[in-house]
Order: sequence, then structure tokens, then C-alpha cells
Amino acid sequence: MPEGFRFGTGYAGLKKNHPDVAVVISETPANHACIFTKNSFPAAPIRLSRATALEHETVGGIVVNAGNANAATGRQGLEDAAFMKQVAERHSAGSAPFLVASTGVIGVPFQSLEKLSVAIEEACATATTGTEALLDVARAIMTTDTVPKAVSKRDRGYVIAGVTKGAGMIAPSMATTLTFIVTDARANNSVLRWALMKAYRATYERISVDAETSTNDCAFLLANGKSGATITGADAPHFASLLTAVLEELSRKLLKDAEGATKLIRVVAAGFPRDDWARTVARSIGDSLLVKTALHGADANWGRVLSAAGKTQIPLEEGRVSISFGPYTLFAGEPRPFSEEDVRAYLEGDEITIFFDAGSGSHSYEYLTCDLSKEYVEINASYRS
Amino acid sequence: MPEGFRFGTGYAGLKKNHPDVAVVISETPANHACIFTKNSFPAAPIRLSRATALEHETVGGIVVNAGNANAATGRQGLEDAAFMKQVAERHSAGSAPFLVASTGVIGVPFQSLEKLSVAIEEACATATTGTEALLDVARAIMTTDTVPKAVSKRDRGYVIAGVTKGAGMIAPSMATTLTFIVTDARANNSVLRWALMKAYRATYERISVDAETSTNDCAFLLANGKSGATITGADAPHFASLLTAVLEELSRKLLKDAEGATKLIRVVAAGFPRDDWARTVARSIGDSLLVKTALHGADANWGRVLSAAGKTQIPLEEGRVSISFGPYTLFAGEPRPFSEEDVRAYLEGDEITIFFDAGSGSHSYEYLTCDLSKEYVEINASYRS
Repeated sequence: MPEGFRFGTGYAGLKKNHPDVAVVISETPANHACIFTKNSFPAAPIRLSRATALEHETVGGIVVNAGNANAATGRQGLEDAAFMKQVAERHSAGSAPFLVASTGVIGVPFQSLEKLSVAIEEACATATTGTEALLDVARAIMTTDTVPKAVSKRDRGYVIAGVTKGAGMIAPSMATTLTFIVTDARANNSVLRWALMKAYRATYERISVDAETSTNDCAFLLANGKSGATITGADAPHFASLLTAVLEELSRKLLKDAEGATKLIRVVAAGFPRDDWARTVARSIGDSLLVKTALHGADANWGRVLSAAGKTQIPLEEGRVSISFGPYTLFAGEPRPFSEEDVRAYLEGDEITIFFDAGSGSHSYEYLTCDLSKEYVEINASYRS
Repeated sequence: MPEGFRFGTGYAGLKKNHPDVAVVISETPANHACIFTKNSFPAAPIRLSRATALEHETVGGIVVNAGNANAATGRQGLEDAAFMKQVAERHSAGSAPFLVASTGVIGVPFQSLEKLSVAIEEACATATTGTEALLDVARAIMTTDTVPKAVSKRDRGYVIAGVTKGAGMIAPSMATTLTFIVTDARANNSVLRWALMKAYRATYERISVDAETSTNDCAFLLANGKSGATITGADAPHFASLLTAVLEELSRKLLKDAEGATKLIRVVAAGFPRDDWARTVARSIGDSLLVKTALHGADANWGRVLSAAGKTQIPLEEGRVSISFGPYTLFAGEPRPFSEEDVRAYLEGDEITIFFDAGSGSHSYEYLTCDLSKEYVEINASYRS
């Protein structure tokens, strides 16, 4: 665990009988980097934290609640987010401002600021160090998640640890779900921002459950320097690698716990003359409902992969295209004979690779997603989540 | 029924115990307009028919099969499509070329050209006039459709009749599913093309089941002039209106029969400063899995509508936005109190309107889609369809 951070949780009655408020407190003001959702209607805590991050070189910690997104809540929502921030700051005894995050139902104002205040106070008062405390935070921010998601890695005298939550509503081109990372390395905000963006683009930006982008997604990285290890320009790439490894593991945990998902699908689009074509095709395949349902049923329906690639309208030559499911090439300019039994056995695994080769260049893109099951529909057709 | 057209069906063993081949034969060469899929990998029949439509002023009819898409089938596929065309032409006793269409599984070559040939011959030999014959064609082209879809309208001395098939894989920006329209009006190809595009943009381009675009989608319009009514420039708008009414009815039948759908969802995005923003937001709301599942569950989750609109990243002011489900306004700059019971009762209906008002201009766009159910997943997770 990174030194100089404490983690606490409390209960504000927003979830049923489970802690729903958490704080991450840095003993000394921490440098930071943040990524915020690009949704046109960012939630109140997002707007507040964006302003905080812009105005302050250091922050004292993070306060977060699950069960209510405090989004589309107008002026009242902004006041409530500011209230959460103030309560956390008051009870954490530090001088630096707090970042605020929320997740849950959109468009419902907090019912009781009193309970929220008591829960934040409780979280601050009981905040402690250690893996269990970090896991408790991971638990408190869960919504439809079924397991807490935390990762910690040590190298060169410092530690990077983080928690994340997701389940549904995960998609690229935004700050994807809530992700909080802390490190006891020392680095300035530019280095942190560079490393976070680099790690983020290689991991969270490449995953999707349902191509949604919520009003509340964010990723916060706090660095308090307590380990004494300082990340200079020369060390920055190594720091970014370790951070990438942490985000990689967290993002895979997200996909494995996606709503109703039974398997992880890796889409590799290769052989493109242009980078953006590879990305567009990879996402089109990975986001296709027909592909996701076929793979859910372990059906070797490579025609749907071809069709999903083709609906991008990117000019590609069918005769140069090949499509493989794992080790089995099913199409190479024309249909290839294959053993239904073997391919089905492969597709019944919990991790599948679809390789789409355009045969027309050297650009490629990798995208991670999951299958679409009846459980996804069940979860999301039920009352307000 | 329009004069001078005959409709026949045959069985080639591509579907189980149901006619799977159909022909539409015009007694005299017919003028035409066609729309083809924009998928990068058009099926063999699409490529062949595109060439036919470009090279010939008139066509003799349409030959179509269901159960096999003849897509991603390489050179063999092109030969097979040409074979279908030749057999139909030979047995229909006309001189003008036929258009060819296919629907079904991608990437599997026809198993027996012999059976295909016999079925086309049978379809030509038994082709006849009348509503029942048209309905038989509608039945023959069904795949996962549960009901045949045919519409006929008469006005000013001519008739426009059509059939369509769809179920899943319906999405805008392509020729969406198979649609065959015949009329006994006389019109030149420019008028037909203008009218078809106009009608198409107002109907099929605005519907979506799962945002897919297949390799085989097409719409063919044939006009043989048998009624004696001639569509001049002055009559063209009226002809286009009647054609739009036919396509409108066919497209609604498609949505109502969409895979697993239980209700039709109309999304109106209004109050935008730009036309393309209204379209993008309407589609983002209509294509959102979270919105489609919430409405499936009759849950008044307007927050998901806001979030889906916002993920377009179009700059909109939350304070000016309002969201209504039918007659109930749930958000107007801030959450509005509403009766859960009343809104649920409304959402349990089989036709729902979501009204998203950006409050910032006069541009609007209307989009039709359906809910997402567990049955959609069930149908599409099962073996090769």
C-alpha cells in the first residue's frame, strides 16, 4: 500500500444496507491529474471537481458517494456537491481542497444532507491505512458491480494503488466509470497528467460494455510523495508503465464484471492503411449487438464480424480481408472450411480474440469488450439504476 | 393491386419447409429506382444488381431468395447470383434483365444450384396476380420475421404496392432490409429515383432496431406504366407522398416485428440550432441500450435519455433542456415531480414518444426504434442466423 493515504467509508442510506460513502485522505497535500467525462451534461460533482483541479495545485483527498449520481439536479446539485466537499475537508483536518465524485441514479436530488454529512464524518473518522480499507472503498463505490475492484503495484521504491467501479455504462472516449488512483511517488502535475493520459489511452479508452458514456465518469490520480521516490522526466516513462499496468488490471476487472457478461472479447483490427480506420473498424465490431450476441451463444458467425466491419463504409477490399476467431481462420478472401466443433469449443472459453485483418497496411487497433446476455437486459430493464 | 405484375414463389431447401425463393415479374419492361446498402462488403446479388440498374433503363422483374445471403462468397457468389438472374430471365419470357436480392446467413455458398434453379422455375411458372400472391412473396422473403409485411395503396388511377422483410439488422444510412415496391404508374427513372430517395429518407432512414447495416440491404422500385397514369414533374410530389405512405406503413410493420421488440419508440429531438445536431441526438437516444432496456421495463428513467443525448458531446445547456415521455414532462432544466404510476402506465403502452427539447433553436429530427428485450439476445445468440 502507498504511504500517507487513509481510506474510510460511511453509510448515508443511498444504497440498501451497504456503505455508500467513501473518502480517500492524503496526509499531506497531493499533486494530481484528473480525467472527466466528455458527456454534454456533466454531473454537479464533475463540474465542481473540474474547477477544483484547475484552480488548485494540490488536493487533500477525494470524497465520493454511490447510489445517487447528483446529475441533472440543477443549482441544488451544485450546492450539494459543494456541501460534500466542505464536510470532507472539515473532518479530514487538512488544508487542501477535496475532489468530489458521485455515481448512481440520475436526476434525483439527495434526500437527506444530514445523513450524507454524518456518513462523510464517519468515513473521515474511521479512515485508516491498509489493503482492507482500500477494498472497503472499492466496495462502497459499487453500484451494479458484483465484486470490489482494487489493484496495487510496487516498484522502484513507490506504490501505485487504485480502485474502480463500472459494470454497465462503460465506453471509450470518456473518463469511463469511477477510478481513483493513489501513489506515494512524488511527481508534478504535468508528469502526472502525461502519465495518466498515456495509461488511460492504452487501457480504459479501449474498453466498452455498451458504448455508453455517463454524466459522472472520472479518473483521479493523487501523488503525495511520501515514499521519497521522485519521478523526474527520465523516470516518467517507467512510472507511466506501472500506472498502465494498474489501469490495465482494473479495466479488465471492469469488463469481467460487466453487467451480464460471461466472457471477455478482444478485437484486433490489423492491416489498415490508416490508424483511424483500424480504430473505427475495431469499435464497430466490438460494439455490434449481433457480434456480441453471437459470441454469447458461442456461434462461429464470422459473417456478422464482416458485416459490422463493413457498416463503417470504410473502403476495404473483401478479397484481402481475413477473419480469425482465436487460432481458427474462418475467412480469407473467401469462406474457409472449419470444424464447427473446434471453433465452438474455443468460443465457449471466457476470453476470445477476434482478429480482423484488412490486408492493406500496417496500422492496427485493439479493443476490449464483452458479450451481450439476457442478464444485461434484465438488469437494465429493472427499476431505476 | 397494380396491373401487369405477377408474383410467384418456390422452394429451394434454404429454409425449413417454407418457400424461400420469390419472383416479381413485370409483363412489360419496367422503369426502376434502386437503393443499395452502403456496407463496405456488399453481397454478390447487390453488386450484380447495382451493375444491372446502372446499365439498363428497364428491368423485367426481381428474383430473390431467403435463407442464404450469398455474401462474402467470393467469385463463386457472383457466379451464383448471375445464375439466379439468368434462370429467372429465361423462365419469365421477358427480354429485360432481372434484379437479384438475397437474405440470410453470410459466408456460406449455395449448396445446390440445381434446387435453386428448380425453385426459381417453379416461382416463374406459378406466378400470378392478386393480393395473396403478393403476400406469398412477403412470406417467402421472411427470415426471423414472424409476420409477412405487404402494403398496397391506390390513388389517381394507379396503385403502389410493396413488401418488406427485416426483424433484426435494421438501421439507417443504408437500404435497410429487403424492400420491393411495384407500381403501375408510368414514370421515368429520374422521377422514380427522386421519389424513392425522398420517401426513403422520411421513413426507412429514420428507423433502427440495433444500429446494424447488413451486406444485403436494398430497396427496388419498379414502374411498368400499365395503369396508363403518367407521373409528370407536376404529379411527382403526389406520387412521392403516396410512396412515402407505403414505405411508412412498411417500416412501421418492420419495427413492430423487430426481434424481441414489445413496443415502438418514437424519439423526437427538437429545439436544436443545427439540423445535424438534432439527428445525432435523436439517434444517440434511440440507439442507447440503456434507454431501450429501461423502456422495455417501463421504467421512467429519463436520466438515461439525458445521458444518451450528452454522450454525443454536442454543446447543450442543461438548463434549457426538457425531456418528456408522452404527455409527462420529467425534466425541464431541473427534475420535475411526476407520478411514477401514471408514467409507468404510459410506458407500458406499445407506442411511446420521447420528446427531447434542447431549447436552443428550431431544428428537429424524428427517429423510430423499438425496445431491447431478452428475446433479442435469445434470437441472436442462437445458431447462425
